[in-house]
Amino acid sequence: MRKLIIEARVNEYMMREQGNPHVPYSPQEIAADAQACREAGAAILHFHARQPDGQPDHAAAAYADTVERVRASSDILVHPTLGYVTLDASGEERLDHILAMAKDPARAPHFAPIDMGSVNVDRYNAQARRFETTNLVYKNSTETLVYFAQNIREAGMKPYLVSWTIGFTRYAGAFLDMGLIDEPAFICFCLTDNTFLGGHPGTLKGLQAHLDFLPADRRVEWTVVNFGGNLFSLAAAIIAQGGHISIGLGDYHYPELGQPTNADLVRRIAEIARELGREVATPAEAKAILAMT
Amino acid sequence: MRKLIIEARVNEYMMREQGNPHVPYSPQEIAADAQACREAGAAILHFHARQPDGQPDHAAAAYADTVERVRASSDILVHPTLGYVTLDASGEERLDHILAMAKDPARAPHFAPIDMGSVNVDRYNAQARRFETTNLVYKNSTETLVYFAQNIREAGMKPYLVSWTIGFTRYAGAFLDMGLIDEPAFICFCLTDNTFLGGHPGTLKGLQAHLDFLPADRRVEWTVVNFGGNLFSLAAAIIAQGGHISIGLGDYHYPELGQPTNADLVRRIAEIARELGREVATPAEAKAILAMT
Repeated sequence: MRKLIIEARVNEYMMREQGNPHVPYSPQEIAADAQACREAGAAILHFHARQPDGQPDHAAAAYADTVERVRASSDILVHPTLGYVTLDASGEERLDHILAMAKDPARAPHFAPIDMGSVNVDRYNAQARRFETTNLVYKNSTETLVYFAQNIREAGMKPYLVSWTIGFTRYAGAFLDMGLIDEPAFICFCLTDNTFLGGHPGTLKGLQAHLDFLPADRRVEWTVVNFGGNLFSLAAAIIAQGGHISIGLGDYHYPELGQPTNADLVRRIAEIARELGREVATPAEAKAILAMT
Repeated sequence: MRKLIIEARVNEYMMREQGNPHVPYSPQEIAADAQACREAGAAILHFHARQPDGQPDHAAAAYADTVERVRASSDILVHPTLGYVTLDASGEERLDHILAMAKDPARAPHFAPIDMGSVNVDRYNAQARRFETTNLVYKNSTETLVYFAQNIREAGMKPYLVSWTIGFTRYAGAFLDMGLIDEPAFICFCLTDNTFLGGHPGTLKGLQAHLDFLPADRRVEWTVVNFGGNLFSLAAAIIAQGGHISIGLGDYHYPELGQPTNADLVRRIAEIARELGREVATPAEAKAILAMT
């Protein structure tokens, strides 16, 4: 079995006030966290640029500053988010800061994400039985997806295909068939617990319903996120089936473990992998597994 | 096991030139087809208003004329489509013609559909490996869905919840929990073959991936469409598991059967049900199963 790629999803839009003071915000904090996660076993860093008070920072400069600091202090592979300003901004606006960074070797990201479809992203509070917002549709038209695939490849990055549900994976299969994406495709199954209803639940059934629809006769490496929930309940099943792991305080603040750091989460995943006899990939090994140049 | 509800989906936007001359267009043709389907075993008619040349007719009068003719000639339950003019028209615009009809007993529909989420609806041609359109996102925001649920109930109709994928069914569960929809919920699993990639494929796995995520502890009656594909491969499995059947030339022109009529398809489903020992519901029995007043 191929070595396990661990991705540290360090912050997303999680606020420290939600329960964990270890969520990194500033470029310096993100770079320090990236280094600690790398030492604990992570091969990939996923981050969102944030202002000092934790608010989203959509400025291209904030992304460039963070990537430069991360790359200067570690060999971890870098996966910034797309800088969407609104949920239906044009593909050009959303990818611009990534393409600008890709031109500068000191700031070049290794991955850029593509959510392979459209989905409602209003948060649902199941306890209170109400939606916290009611008008958020995350639009990714086919045209936008084609634009992303072509430009991410042309800029020398690997597309990180996010699948919220079966139709998104069918899109990934079509893009492979159309030659818009190179094998192996790297697909992240985004399970959603306690947040959005658009993904599959963070259960074995939710995971299996993704795996049953992987494109036939195509090489795919897959990883799993549980956005809003604890991924450890699925970790052994994922690792044993050859999947990869994407985990971090950006998705869930893990009160079950006290107030862990991102590196603590990565370290625990690496331990589980060792218990199952699977080795953890270095960044260089992850690049080889994903056929990145 | 409850009796089988057969819904005849007679035309959608299928053109006769696509291979079957029996697709009804005019109000007269739809009413005649509805009567024939009723005699063959259908309890529900689903239709789209069409112009004499087959083009979509979004005029409220076309819907009213069709429903009036259908109701005058048969007791079949009536399920018109929403009159969306564009894929992201407001909820009001899309529901107006239905609410207007609901006020007139001679024209009142029994069902109105709610697609429980957003999804890309560009057609993909797998043989040619290309998308036939690239910019169609079918937007149904949470706000719009709440508007539909409230107004459809208030007008005395049963909401017909369309689920393209697991997230849509999770939305249906949330709406049940919020009290926006009455039990039993009536959910249609819309499998998609040879057309859109947003649904599950029309296979046993595609069906099972829906059934695994039915809301727990809630009463649900479910039916299945295969948009773009042959539903007979799944019919026995659906009928044996207690599901209902939604079939018609609107979804697929069934060249495997020559050039069948909608009534031929309904009759064949009723035969399969009899072979499996399941009775077919009359319109009155369907209303009772769905707790409609």
